[in-house]
Amino acid sequence: MSIMNMKRSHMAGSLRTEHIGETVTLTGWVQKRRDLGGLIFVDIRDRSGMSQVVFDKDISQEAFNQAETLGSEYVISARGKVFKRHSVNPNMPTGEVEIFVDTLEVLNTAETTPIYIKDDDDVGENLRLKYRYLDLRKSSMQKNLMLRHTVSKIVRNFLSDEGFIEVETPMLTKPTPEGARDYLVPSRVNPGKFFALPQSPQLFKQLLMVSGMERYFQIVKCFRDEDLRADRQPEFTQIDCEMSFVDQQDIIEMNENLLKKVFKDALDIDIQLPFPQMPYDEAMERYGSDKPDIRFDFELVDLGEIVKESGFKVFSSAIQNGGFVKAINVKGYAEQFSRKDITSLEEFVKTYGAKGLAWMKVTAEGVTSPIAKFFNEDETKALLEATDANSGDLLLFVADQPKVVYDSLGHLRIEVAKRLGLLNKEEFKMLWVTDFPLFEYDEEENRYMAMHHPFTSPVDEDIPLLDTHPEKVRAKAYDIVLNGYEIGGGSLRIFSSELQQKMFKTLGFSEEEAWEKFGFLLEAFKYGTPPHGGIAFGLDRLVMILAQEENIRQVIAFPKTQNAICPMTNAPSIADEKQLKELAIRVQLPE
Amino acid sequence: MSIMNMKRSHMAGSLRTEHIGETVTLTGWVQKRRDLGGLIFVDIRDRSGMSQVVFDKDISQEAFNQAETLGSEYVISARGKVFKRHSVNPNMPTGEVEIFVDTLEVLNTAETTPIYIKDDDDVGENLRLKYRYLDLRKSSMQKNLMLRHTVSKIVRNFLSDEGFIEVETPMLTKPTPEGARDYLVPSRVNPGKFFALPQSPQLFKQLLMVSGMERYFQIVKCFRDEDLRADRQPEFTQIDCEMSFVDQQDIIEMNENLLKKVFKDALDIDIQLPFPQMPYDEAMERYGSDKPDIRFDFELVDLGEIVKESGFKVFSSAIQNGGFVKAINVKGYAEQFSRKDITSLEEFVKTYGAKGLAWMKVTAEGVTSPIAKFFNEDETKALLEATDANSGDLLLFVADQPKVVYDSLGHLRIEVAKRLGLLNKEEFKMLWVTDFPLFEYDEEENRYMAMHHPFTSPVDEDIPLLDTHPEKVRAKAYDIVLNGYEIGGGSLRIFSSELQQKMFKTLGFSEEEAWEKFGFLLEAFKYGTPPHGGIAFGLDRLVMILAQEENIRQVIAFPKTQNAICPMTNAPSIADEKQLKELAIRVQLPE
Repeated sequence: MSIMNMKRSHMAGSLRTEHIGETVTLTGWVQKRRDLGGLIFVDIRDRSGMSQVVFDKDISQEAFNQAETLGSEYVISARGKVFKRHSVNPNMPTGEVEIFVDTLEVLNTAETTPIYIKDDDDVGENLRLKYRYLDLRKSSMQKNLMLRHTVSKIVRNFLSDEGFIEVETPMLTKPTPEGARDYLVPSRVNPGKFFALPQSPQLFKQLLMVSGMERYFQIVKCFRDEDLRADRQPEFTQIDCEMSFVDQQDIIEMNENLLKKVFKDALDIDIQLPFPQMPYDEAMERYGSDKPDIRFDFELVDLGEIVKESGFKVFSSAIQNGGFVKAINVKGYAEQFSRKDITSLEEFVKTYGAKGLAWMKVTAEGVTSPIAKFFNEDETKALLEATDANSGDLLLFVADQPKVVYDSLGHLRIEVAKRLGLLNKEEFKMLWVTDFPLFEYDEEENRYMAMHHPFTSPVDEDIPLLDTHPEKVRAKAYDIVLNGYEIGGGSLRIFSSELQQKMFKTLGFSEEEAWEKFGFLLEAFKYGTPPHGGIAFGLDRLVMILAQEENIRQVIAFPKTQNAICPMTNAPSIADEKQLKELAIRVQLPE
Repeated sequence: MSIMNMKRSHMAGSLRTEHIGETVTLTGWVQKRRDLGGLIFVDIRDRSGMSQVVFDKDISQEAFNQAETLGSEYVISARGKVFKRHSVNPNMPTGEVEIFVDTLEVLNTAETTPIYIKDDDDVGENLRLKYRYLDLRKSSMQKNLMLRHTVSKIVRNFLSDEGFIEVETPMLTKPTPEGARDYLVPSRVNPGKFFALPQSPQLFKQLLMVSGMERYFQIVKCFRDEDLRADRQPEFTQIDCEMSFVDQQDIIEMNENLLKKVFKDALDIDIQLPFPQMPYDEAMERYGSDKPDIRFDFELVDLGEIVKESGFKVFSSAIQNGGFVKAINVKGYAEQFSRKDITSLEEFVKTYGAKGLAWMKVTAEGVTSPIAKFFNEDETKALLEATDANSGDLLLFVADQPKVVYDSLGHLRIEVAKRLGLLNKEEFKMLWVTDFPLFEYDEEENRYMAMHHPFTSPVDEDIPLLDTHPEKVRAKAYDIVLNGYEIGGGSLRIFSSELQQKMFKTLGFSEEEAWEKFGFLLEAFKYGTPPHGGIAFGLDRLVMILAQEENIRQVIAFPKTQNAICPMTNAPSIADEKQLKELAIRVQLPE
């Protein structure tokens, strides 16, 4: 390490022919060094890009000698005059110029790095995370983090301009009953008691509405101790909003404008407003999913009426047992799927509980299918008509209980589109899914659970059904879906203490339990609570899609692995006994 | 609770005479209702302020009847025509107009609130925190939260414009050795192991410099499990920055510009640049503090040379025992301090370890003092000269070991200024304190500790002293002080693995311990680390001073009490056994 005497005059990625003749100082990292024809060529890299600098004995013997010692990733400061480059490199924005160095400072050396600093290095993710500080030198990762910064900035300034105030809510707070699993934090000052890290600022933002803040937002860390997937992390970031004196359409329009701004300012993409709105029931019917990817068709077609009396027992008995028979038409792509391909699609749907996958290919000569023989001419004709099937189409059928049919065909249509290369990452299709059921029945707990959360308002006309048919009550809830990902969701909230208590009762809480767990909210609602509602976006997921990445770890600086550890710092780690004693806890490992 | 049909057309605080004749709809809270002369007057409050609406039977009997039921804090929506007010209220910005209501919607009722919604309500803080959602309805609290939002926004946009990228660092991370006490989070997936909540993103921001991010910032929650004071909370918010390829002066100038921008855009106050820079030693000499309040004088004067041979044993023996005798001159205010006042000041300095407080009043007739008799004429003259004492001045002396003298006189000058009303909250005086010692000796641990943190770079010319005289090594560290509060601090960092290892050695770590605790940093420093440094501001404290508040709880939406609890949610609370078992821990209360 050495003292830096020469300060940067220009960013390495910024030099162009207009700088020819100027003396500049670049600081950065040695991307590579080549010794050629008595000269030494070095690419200097900084956050902005790279420039080539040249060492020539005739200009400075001392700098030349120093340059001979330079290795990859050394940190240097180099001063010299900008010249037109002898052999232009059209692949570099600075490829038309080079700098002949008169003075070099080596600010730091570098050992050989355990991973290469280049985007297409296909090293394992564990090693990338262990040496994350090197992985983040890659231009793709720097671009992702800059995009994330830009998106946050756009969101903050947009919401601020719309009169929203960013208010920080506590990280050390109360557990979330009815939520996912909490992370707990033992309290030293109050031995035997625990804080929980927030799963979302839900109750605090509602209390801010009670307090008359009217428009709140926050970009905030939230925590869920759940098993991890490609798009989940123990800690994640939410864009969290809440508004008073609004209805559902006001919230939807505000957020459409927000997203339009993000796409325009971050990616220079114009998004058309308004987004389509689709009730939950319709989304399930047509796409088998409450977060449909609408970049392509292959919609589900119900065939129950046609096949219920057919000779194909698999279909007719499914209907008789209260199930569905549905199909998707992979329109025009029949030839692209061999029998082997279809067998592999069958394996795919089996992971969603389907017992099999029936299929038909339509050709000019008629239907090719192992199940064709079970249907009479009328039934076959009706099937083809219902699915709008013509020559060249492939029909894929699942017959089963409703949940299995939706799950397997819903995922199948995406799998088929993926195999056909129809998932265009540069296309962004959004829609709102609305009118969710307020409850879903939990077989394990043997009671109703809130589909979103227990503070979601029922649709007014459905309130009387709370006592008699909770399963029929619709929620004033809405999710925003982008290319098959739920990127955000929200609702209008209950704002009356009585209705909130009725809600808890439907969820199976006694009055005592409800007050013990949510007393401060029930109490707050008594003192003049305005109508309010809001939304929360998953920032990690949103940025992941905007960056055209498939894993949220690509847009998080220091993520955890799927085992919730950090290979770089080795967190989590063993705590010392003294501190555990102060916290009044001890470890008791499972036997 | 009722459905809202009429939407707000104007904010209640925005109506002026130019709106006369318009029909407007206001939504908000009933601040108060008065029934007078057959009319009902209601002040409607929203986030922007208040307007008076009037109910008149002749305009709408129905609205009048509804209005008779209105109580304080009811939530309403009221539509009507704006008229010139009969009796103008000069105390309200909307005091020249009133609205005669034709339609009223009562959106929600309110029970009598347990605290009043007015700024000068002097209810106890515990009750305020229990009903924080009501406390936050007060315009002073709303103003504070809006100021906080504004300051964050200004900081983010300024830093963004300066090329800083906001990068989120982990909340679930590794404990901080050499720091304060950590909050721990048990890991379920890795039983027996713990995450720690970050005390600051220090190592992550340094690793981001290793990764070539060059300019990083974050406004971020940090955590310290320490005993609380008026300006401390378990969780607090930091404005955290780090830059590569810069020296101390670059960082100082960037931050001066940032603060200038904050004062200008948030408060419309022009701050003069540059701020004074004062070495640590000078700050201690002159103010007895490394965070001097320079809004007033009363500087410390060293009198050791003058009194070391004097007949006053308290003074002379202090010097002989390696101590100091110093005084402050409370210039011109002698008459304002009675003997009783001085006795109470003596009690005050005793809390800082002083054994007593000697004093002299200078009058036209000479010196009045219980200790005057101990000094000869020359000594007295020299004392008065050294302290620049004239008629009307009060001298206050402390003789003791250096730490006690600095502590007691450093605090005394502030206490005296406070009693004299010299702490003008509308005056903002900043300075940099520089050249801190790198280490301080910890008697309890019997070793050197880093005064800032172990990653602070020593001053280059002092590096050889690391082995021989660690106590003499100065740090490339700087604090920014505003009106006697340290609002931020930073340093240039060590960026060589070898020097960092040497630093750990001086702190008493074996090589093995250093690698075990900080191995990832030592490793990272091997692969090309740029020179870098940064700063962190305490956002809560900064906003507190800008808001002219004296307690950070006034600028935090949902703070904890001094016992680290939240009276509203009752966090922390007992966890259930099932969850503790999943986390592989159990509670073991101290006996």
